[in-house]
Amino acid sequence: MCRWLAYSGTSVVLSDLLYKPEHSLIDQSLRSRMGVETTNGDGFGVGWYGPGGETPAIIRDTGPAWNNRNLRELASHVSSPLFFAHVRASTGTAVQQTNCHPFRHGRWLWMHNGEIADFHRLRRSLALELDPALFSALEGSTDSEVMFYLALTFGLDQDVPGAVARMAGFIERVGHDEGVEHPLQMTVAVSDGVRLWSFRYSSLHESRSLFHSSKAETVRALHPDLDFLRGVSDTTRLVVSEPLGGLPGVWKEVPESSYGVVQPGTDEFLPFVPEPF
Amino acid sequence: MCRWLAYSGTSVVLSDLLYKPEHSLIDQSLRSRMGVETTNGDGFGVGWYGPGGETPAIIRDTGPAWNNRNLRELASHVSSPLFFAHVRASTGTAVQQTNCHPFRHGRWLWMHNGEIADFHRLRRSLALELDPALFSALEGSTDSEVMFYLALTFGLDQDVPGAVARMAGFIERVGHDEGVEHPLQMTVAVSDGVRLWSFRYSSLHESRSLFHSSKAETVRALHPDLDFLRGVSDTTRLVVSEPLGGLPGVWKEVPESSYGVVQPGTDEFLPFVPEPF
Amino acid sequence: MCRWLAYSGTSVVLSDLLYKPEHSLIDQSLRSRMGVETTNGDGFGVGWYGPGGETPAIIRDTGPAWNNRNLRELASHVSSPLFFAHVRASTGTAVQQTNCHPFRHGRWLWMHNGEIADFHRLRRSLALELDPALFSALEGSTDSEVMFYLALTFGLDQDVPGAVARMAGFIERVGHDEGVEHPLQMTVAVSDGVRLWSFRYSSLHESRSLFHSSKAETVRALHPDLDFLRGVSDTTRLVVSEPLGGLPGVWKEVPESSYGVVQPGTDEFLPFVPEPF
Amino acid sequence: MCRWLAYSGTSVVLSDLLYKPEHSLIDQSLRSRMGVETTNGDGFGVGWYGPGGETPAIIRDTGPAWNNRNLRELASHVSSPLFFAHVRASTGTAVQQTNCHPFRHGRWLWMHNGEIADFHRLRRSLALELDPALFSALEGSTDSEVMFYLALTFGLDQDVPGAVARMAGFIERVGHDEGVEHPLQMTVAVSDGVRLWSFRYSSLHESRSLFHSSKAETVRALHPDLDFLRGVSDTTRLVVSEPLGGLPGVWKEVPESSYGVVQPGTDEFLPFVPEPF
Repeated sequence: MCRWLAYSGTSVVLSDLLYKPEHSLIDQSLRSRMGVETTNGDGFGVGWYGPGGETPAIIRDTGPAWNNRNLRELASHVSSPLFFAHVRASTGTAVQQTNCHPFRHGRWLWMHNGEIADFHRLRRSLALELDPALFSALEGSTDSEVMFYLALTFGLDQDVPGAVARMAGFIERVGHDEGVEHPLQMTVAVSDGVRLWSFRYSSLHESRSLFHSSKAETVRALHPDLDFLRGVSDTTRLVVSEPLGGLPGVWKEVPESSYGVVQPGTDEFLPFVPEPF
Repeated sequence: MCRWLAYSGTSVVLSDLLYKPEHSLIDQSLRSRMGVETTNGDGFGVGWYGPGGETPAIIRDTGPAWNNRNLRELASHVSSPLFFAHVRASTGTAVQQTNCHPFRHGRWLWMHNGEIADFHRLRRSLALELDPALFSALEGSTDSEVMFYLALTFGLDQDVPGAVARMAGFIERVGHDEGVEHPLQMTVAVSDGVRLWSFRYSSLHESRSLFHSSKAETVRALHPDLDFLRGVSDTTRLVVSEPLGGLPGVWKEVPESSYGVVQPGTDEFLPFVPEPF
Repeated sequence: MCRWLAYSGTSVVLSDLLYKPEHSLIDQSLRSRMGVETTNGDGFGVGWYGPGGETPAIIRDTGPAWNNRNLRELASHVSSPLFFAHVRASTGTAVQQTNCHPFRHGRWLWMHNGEIADFHRLRRSLALELDPALFSALEGSTDSEVMFYLALTFGLDQDVPGAVARMAGFIERVGHDEGVEHPLQMTVAVSDGVRLWSFRYSSLHESRSLFHSSKAETVRALHPDLDFLRGVSDTTRLVVSEPLGGLPGVWKEVPESSYGVVQPGTDEFLPFVPEPF
Repeated sequence: MCRWLAYSGTSVVLSDLLYKPEHSLIDQSLRSRMGVETTNGDGFGVGWYGPGGETPAIIRDTGPAWNNRNLRELASHVSSPLFFAHVRASTGTAVQQTNCHPFRHGRWLWMHNGEIADFHRLRRSLALELDPALFSALEGSTDSEVMFYLALTFGLDQDVPGAVARMAGFIERVGHDEGVEHPLQMTVAVSDGVRLWSFRYSSLHESRSLFHSSKAETVRALHPDLDFLRGVSDTTRLVVSEPLGGLPGVWKEVPESSYGVVQPGTDEFLPFVPEPF
């Protein structure tokens, strides 16, 4: 449906990652190779944290990313150590700013590729479970925003993997109650400005593609000629819906039904299991 | 908050009413005289029925009406015997197409000026009362869309004044339960393609301005020089947030807490009383 | 670069041709098969004449056609005996309404697929040749608008094929003077509200694809089951950048370096030769 | 026609000046007090230099500034020691990004309030004088862009006041040749990333309003309670179409037919006289 990119590491100018790679996210907006749709032209968004991890900025617009001059300007003049970018292919919900990713709540950023099957039918039951204050804060009409607010309702502030597992378990229960066999399909990125979590899961266990960059030192050893890698820290990581280019050894597929955390010291994927509701 | 115009009568080219009058709705988008806000530049919409009263078309966009070339083109080339037009001044909710009026459901058109006080706080309780299918069909984040869907839930298809009275009563009850003293402020137009209802009401009994044009024959007698009036039927009527010009005898203020129906033979205003819920 | 469709014949609801065919123009905006670009998402436009052939309406917007709700509404509620539709893929010029096709001048509509090679370099010399009043009326920055205004300068009002031939000859002369080997690549549609001309030409004689529908009676005989064809006149014709579907016998490729006129009685293609300048 | 603000001094978060003042530029977009038009809702733009004075970023959009969420986000997260902001009221030219200010060429930023009288008629003669490379680079249809490119043609790179004087002289000559009595009305800001020039001039010597902030130390002495002023350097200056608030002693009107330069050491206004062409 969509394509996204999440970056965490040494502060970079956004355009180095959004525009320069051979098969950059902007290129994916026009010609995705691994997405359900080739074209992701129904809006886009960028969210970035400053060096202090404070409340992030989000810029979202409804046209295609590939021809947006403001995005190009911004990406060339803003640096960040932790940012999200998303290009959208709508499956019918309105093309409007409030349906564009990333979504923000306080210090949290959230973006999603996938869908809740039969969302139209499940929407009310899902929304009723939301914390009332979050219900009132809903601005758009996507499943992705509801997923985010469910995760917040279920304790994202305290325990990210746990809250996402409860969200997934709840969506599956509501779906099954309504006769939807495989209710959830998702790759999700979420951050609090310090750590970056990514999830790959679907009820059918045939989840949308998701890739993680290898350790910076590994990539550096393989490709000593890449300028960009020279100055980045070893914990710098990219998580992407599809590889930004074909360099061997750079990209590792995120395993089915798993999640990862980008933070100092770690680089492993843990299994993701929805928590039965 | 907003300004609107509803027309019912002999089929006219939309621009004759939207652009030509001295203080047309397009002029009101830039310099309203009686509105809470001078500028109504946060989106606009037009909805029109064809000669058969079939499902109406709606065109809505997020920029100001006054500089929109597509609106001018459309208004100059489309004729209709029954149409709505609306210019919006947002009180904070997102400026997006799905928050622009008129709203449509099947053959119904609905537009609104006013607000539900503290809507953010009442939103969840109001939405829970909606027919589940209508809940799922919500696309925007305005009080106006919720009001429309409440009226549909309460039987708009069978009894327009009754459904609107129940909607108003329900909103007041929810508001009072939550400690909101004067929950509702509204001027509403609604049509099924045949008849045109307009409502003026507020919990405080200080409702936003609303005007009704006089009988076409009355106006014709007063202003024999007005080209536009020459060919229109006696039952042709305009309902507007504020007069389109200063001609004496043309505009009658809609009484406080009342509603009117434009249909052959009638031209009276009936009292509007919310139905206690 | 772009895809377009021109229709002349029995009045039809626009959506019957813009949305309903298997590989409609709207589908081509997302997945063109024969275009230089797969995606034509940098704006769109529709221009239509009323039954009297008066000054046509044009509606143009900068987002993709495929997700534009206003276009869908409009196309479902407007009928016309003669209309143009265009989806744009920019080659770098700004994505703005004034760069969207069709262009209009008085009763004329014009749309174009192709390019003037090295337009940036030739632009000034081309613009200086424009009738001064037309120079002042330039609103956008495309080669297509300059081509239209050159054709108007060279007598479009009196002799369409002659004016277009002079335009092509002039562009080729300016290009050659500046060292551009193959200055022109074009498929063009132009109408005065009565007749519809289409041109296929390129300096290299490898012009972009262009197709003409067969005589309505021929198509009817081949496909007696097609509802749409039942009521249309024999002189009804479609000219399209690429076929709207795979029905055998419906589409004839417009020959290289030729032009056609849709008008009662004619259905032939004449050779198109630029007039040396 | 428009309202603008130019800032040079200690690096600040843009929103401190664009949103926080009582009668900020964003407020002026909705309710200007001294402008020809109350509403400046036909697009906006911001251009800012980084700390190194490199090629500035520009963000421009076609809707009103007052409801633009991206502008608010950006302004809250970007700091700059030298930036321009502009809200536009179109006098008929298209509402499109390429007609929004500021305009940029290399390291130069330019913005304008005012007009060339009868521009439509003078446009061709003015454009013909442009350096051919600049002619080809024209993207929009405003007089303001042509003025900028004329100044560049006349040596802005070498001598800013001289180039602007030649531009004004040339416009007046062309205007007079065509029978336009008072061809030019302008307040202009221009910067190379180091210095900031502002011009106030009109052929009629009744120029649009322009104000300059007093020396920071003067304002600090008058208003010791203003947080914002605490950390700013003495050479910090604001140039604005109209004052951002009513504090006594803060704003000095720029004299008729004069220009100023903001740079270390200077704070005087010099007479501006068009150079006869």
